[in-house]
Amino acid sequence: MTTNTASLPFDPAGIQLDAKLGLSRGLYQALRSRILDGRLASGTRMPASRDLAQALAVSRNTVVRAYDQLYAEGFLAGRVGDGTYVALLEGVPEKLSTKLSTGLSLGFSTGLSTKTPADTGFVSSKVIHTAASKCLDEHHLPPFRSGPPRAFRVGVPAFDLFPFATWAKLYAAFWRNPDPELLGYGDPAGDPELRSLIAAYLRSSRGLNCRAEQILITTGAQEAISLCAQLLVDPGDTVAVENPGYRAAGHAFVNAGAKLKGVPVDEEGLTGAALEEGEPCRMVYVTPAHQYPTGVTLSLARRLALLEWAERNRGWIIEDDYDGEYRYSGAPLAPLAALDRSGRVLYVGTFGKVAFPALRLGYLVVPEGLVEAFSRKRAVALRHSEIGTQRVMARFIADGHFQRHIRRMRRAALARRDALLGNWPADIRGVGPLPQVNAGLHFTVPVESVAREQQLLASAEAVGVELNGLSHYWLPESAEPVDNRAGLVLGFAAVAPAATLAALDRLRQAWKS
Amino acid sequence: MTTNTASLPFDPAGIQLDAKLGLSRGLYQALRSRILDGRLASGTRMPASRDLAQALAVSRNTVVRAYDQLYAEGFLAGRVGDGTYVALLEGVPEKLSTKLSTGLSLGFSTGLSTKTPADTGFVSSKVIHTAASKCLDEHHLPPFRSGPPRAFRVGVPAFDLFPFATWAKLYAAFWRNPDPELLGYGDPAGDPELRSLIAAYLRSSRGLNCRAEQILITTGAQEAISLCAQLLVDPGDTVAVENPGYRAAGHAFVNAGAKLKGVPVDEEGLTGAALEEGEPCRMVYVTPAHQYPTGVTLSLARRLALLEWAERNRGWIIEDDYDGEYRYSGAPLAPLAALDRSGRVLYVGTFGKVAFPALRLGYLVVPEGLVEAFSRKRAVALRHSEIGTQRVMARFIADGHFQRHIRRMRRAALARRDALLGNWPADIRGVGPLPQVNAGLHFTVPVESVAREQQLLASAEAVGVELNGLSHYWLPESAEPVDNRAGLVLGFAAVAPAATLAALDRLRQAWKS
Repeated sequence: MTTNTASLPFDPAGIQLDAKLGLSRGLYQALRSRILDGRLASGTRMPASRDLAQALAVSRNTVVRAYDQLYAEGFLAGRVGDGTYVALLEGVPEKLSTKLSTGLSLGFSTGLSTKTPADTGFVSSKVIHTAASKCLDEHHLPPFRSGPPRAFRVGVPAFDLFPFATWAKLYAAFWRNPDPELLGYGDPAGDPELRSLIAAYLRSSRGLNCRAEQILITTGAQEAISLCAQLLVDPGDTVAVENPGYRAAGHAFVNAGAKLKGVPVDEEGLTGAALEEGEPCRMVYVTPAHQYPTGVTLSLARRLALLEWAERNRGWIIEDDYDGEYRYSGAPLAPLAALDRSGRVLYVGTFGKVAFPALRLGYLVVPEGLVEAFSRKRAVALRHSEIGTQRVMARFIADGHFQRHIRRMRRAALARRDALLGNWPADIRGVGPLPQVNAGLHFTVPVESVAREQQLLASAEAVGVELNGLSHYWLPESAEPVDNRAGLVLGFAAVAPAATLAALDRLRQAWKS
Repeated sequence: MTTNTASLPFDPAGIQLDAKLGLSRGLYQALRSRILDGRLASGTRMPASRDLAQALAVSRNTVVRAYDQLYAEGFLAGRVGDGTYVALLEGVPEKLSTKLSTGLSLGFSTGLSTKTPADTGFVSSKVIHTAASKCLDEHHLPPFRSGPPRAFRVGVPAFDLFPFATWAKLYAAFWRNPDPELLGYGDPAGDPELRSLIAAYLRSSRGLNCRAEQILITTGAQEAISLCAQLLVDPGDTVAVENPGYRAAGHAFVNAGAKLKGVPVDEEGLTGAALEEGEPCRMVYVTPAHQYPTGVTLSLARRLALLEWAERNRGWIIEDDYDGEYRYSGAPLAPLAALDRSGRVLYVGTFGKVAFPALRLGYLVVPEGLVEAFSRKRAVALRHSEIGTQRVMARFIADGHFQRHIRRMRRAALARRDALLGNWPADIRGVGPLPQVNAGLHFTVPVESVAREQQLLASAEAVGVELNGLSHYWLPESAEPVDNRAGLVLGFAAVAPAATLAALDRLRQAWKS
């Protein structure tokens, strides 16, 4: 620690590293805190990793890792051959906010609120701090939990009912003697047979008239959303997202350089008026059939208004129909894509909620004029999808298994919904009434405050029950009063009624005591 | 150690494993010494990995790794459905001795040029501003042709030899009774079992020491390259690419906002000095084992210089080892990733050139500090890859099919190479001499001018023969005189020798007339 510090552009003397906590992690934290509190000013040239390593008596790798992390999170910037600098964290919104968001995190600049997260009492960190994706991942991403299905898990259908024996036979049949023509490089948009079957399915099940050529096969809904972001969003554009909403979609837009505008959701769905306030939007991401996570259906009036907005402003609408197969009563409204007359809607669908999520098979229906551009974009991103899964799904549909399975899944989801609704503990302090559940695989119950929500989650966790808090689904900066953001998001399809009842018993005991 | 040993084909009683020295390493050494001293005679059938693991009270992975290493080194051999045998060590000098050195030591100092890049003459490169990827796509993408394999097609291995019956059985076995834990949302970086097997494979086959956690499963090499571009390139950065080179990689960088700098390739590969001229580069994309498309191998001196450049400039090197499994003579050089001491190399591998392209299964090995960032990036792009294909490939590797198949493919490619080299029409006007072909699945023959190249292509097409012109593989703006860019890029593995000979007959007639 004694040598060379004089030649460094800042004084590392106060940096105390503890091998037990991780040298590199400790250095990263020490540097980050110095950047955040200004001891390391914007524009300061960082010492070469070799010099800092020597000054701190640690390995060079330790320094390189800390620098890499800071770089990835946007705290450092640099150019090849020109050293590494402390990034300019304020006042250079353009380049830096792009950089901050590159692949890592949400660089939120919503048009809605100028409050910092600290003002809301909801997030203790500073705005720039949310650039550190770790923080975001831990506190703001709706948890996508792995492991076997459990009661109340969101986004998981009744895949215990999937006909795996049939699936195995179809795979074996395909691979025993595949057409060599299918084994080289294929169409980036996907297997033509599967695309044509999907087009037919959408016509009959959604009233959505599209040609097979408008369909791109994707690695689940997430790739479809991410492609839209990459192709239709320019850095600096504003993208409107439902708030609360599907946060992984927001990430895709921010990755493409977008600023997010959180738009409130009421009992008719996304509130159109908010869309027109403030910064004009280039795109709206919406879940009309069954809003994620509240479960609200976008009303017809709102649908028409949204389409009118898109036509008038030449904006894009990304319609994510992630669980549109599940409808228990009432006639479904036509998807936006079926009502769209000016080619502004991109429709996202997935097989993950009918089969199982790890299938990673989805699709995107794009307006005629965009087919070629999307196809090229996808070719550069990953060329195309694996052929076997596409062909097996095509056979599964063509042989009628798919439609049978949808009916089976709908019946099962209905029974599982009823098991949850019928046995939900009444009179839990601070928990609001159950909603009507006419669609989807989950619903949301309001809770009086975020503090109470967190209490309920913690005591559920203590008895081994997994629950999701609605507060996780909000953008960090929201105009909505913090306690209006509380709730429980309850998936009901992942496990059979018996397992739901058992989990409810544990919840009841944990919450009543 | 007490159970089951009676049923094993040899007595493992004397094998003492020490966890501190590495169980797998210890088992490898014990088996190797028994093979070398004859206790395990040539032709002995080895026990199934499961049985030996049980007998030795070690994990199955330990045995699989030891077998893999022995297999890669030629001590074990096997055929599909017929188990693993101790190899016949006499009479197979050629392949085995090559194999023995594969990736195990860095003893490649003999006979190599000690020239530094500065000594080698090179043509100065131009920085190319290619914002318009559209233009690139339409006019300059090397054709990735679909349809059944045909003579001379580039990038297509001998997949007629793939063991589809085995593949079909593995799929059926997986899907008949899948672990529900695998069917929900999984790790964006990929299935842990497959990642661990790939790490073991890279250690034994490439001398590349990496942890399973550093490996990301990708949708083929293209997604791996595209992820690097998205995460490590900022808009305006300059990325150096080989010129001529793999144009789809260049597209991925341009998509991320990069300017491309075409760097010439000479007989030692990418010319390092050109890298340092003009605009500094943030990243270099390189195909060291078998330059795409020229087939040149990057010399050791150039490898070291390139690594030194990356360390000095904190630049990134994307090493695309797309067909590294195919090496016909000479010891392979260590990959850049194995020589990298400062964590600047990202290594791209693919199963598409050993199995078949439509498999779309590849991997990326990233430096420790980048694992989390890449994993997050991938989660936002598409969440993760379909589980079945990953698990089936893991089983394919663990059961030894993969290693056997590599050897089969290498033999087949060699035979197909010889069919083409031995029957290529001599004395075609304007066509240069055949090169030495020591690696890969294609080679390049120079042609006197682009006009002549186009003539040759057109007359080939007129008789139904598909050929690729080298001129397609250049960046649109290159300093290289246009006629130096002409040539024929000839894939030799896609079809059996008979089909190659038939195509050559047609070519001969078309070109002589």
